[in-house]
Amino acid sequence: MATDPNCLFCKIVAGKIPSMKLYESEKTYAFLDIGPLSDGHALVIPKHHGAKLHEIPDDYLAELLPVAKKLAIATGSDQYNILQNNGRLAHQLVDHVHVHMIPKPDEKQGLTVGWPATQPAKEDLQKVFENIKTKLEKL
Amino acid sequence: MATDPNCLFCKIVAGKIPSMKLYESEKTYAFLDIGPLSDGHALVIPKHHGAKLHEIPDDYLAELLPVAKKLAIATGSDQYNILQNNGRLAHQLVDHVHVHMIPKPDEKQGLTVGWPATQPAKEDLQKVFENIKTKLEKL
Ligand SMILES: [Zn+2]
Ligand SMILES: [Zn+2]
Repeated sequence: MATDPNCLFCKIVAGKIPSMKLYESEKTYAFLDIGPLSDGHALVIPKHHGAKLHEIPDDYLAELLPVAKKLAIATGSDQYNILQNNGRLAHQLVDHVHVHMIPKPDEKQGLTVGWPATQPAKEDLQKVFENIKTKLEKL
Repeated sequence: MATDPNCLFCKIVAGKIPSMKLYESEKTYAFLDIGPLSDGHALVIPKHHGAKLHEIPDDYLAELLPVAKKLAIATGSDQYNILQNNGRLAHQLVDHVHVHMIPKPDEKQGLTVGWPATQPAKEDLQKVFENIKTKLEKL
């Protein structure tokens, strides 16, 4: 279990900074966001330090969505977004992987999603597809 | 493994509707989004039918982020968003749980995140916290 002594979320996991802890297991920690987008907005984090999703071991990743599910059920949310941001451009602020569970009770509260969809030509999509496929086969 | 014969994504998993398949295991299926927000935008879905995250068994949920991680690595994405929407208000269009892996190569391409953060009073946060905590303990 990697930790970073200077990381805000590692400090929260270690109990050095207080948090409103909702859940804890050997590999996972969940707590209420103190600057919530809506009531019940919570964060689920792996106890393994890593800035981005692709840096976290699979066994830590595996627990995150089952815990987010518990939180969705406990908040009684029927509509909600699960969001995990990687990188500043992608709206990540704390460099320790965290999954947001954000209730969406109405239009105004919760996450706002902007969806600039594109319509690539079939050949272009095909090229992207083959490129990813080739790289996946080498993983 | 629940399936719905009228569901678009169940039809894709069954091979009745074609898709650009990137990955498949016993419980999981991943394919390229054909209306992508950015090159490499892909979807990871459980083979178990269910509209929302809280309807999917934990063993299916457990595989989704490890597969999204593979896709992030294969697309060579350094910045990206992982998003899973539940309900129309939360921007869900197909009623079969799907996790988006959306590369964020620059400001213009990829997901746009709106973040209407609130600053609730400590007592209000505490109430929300205790309410969720109590419900979690009964799950
Ligand atoms: Zn950390
Ligand atoms: Zn389905």
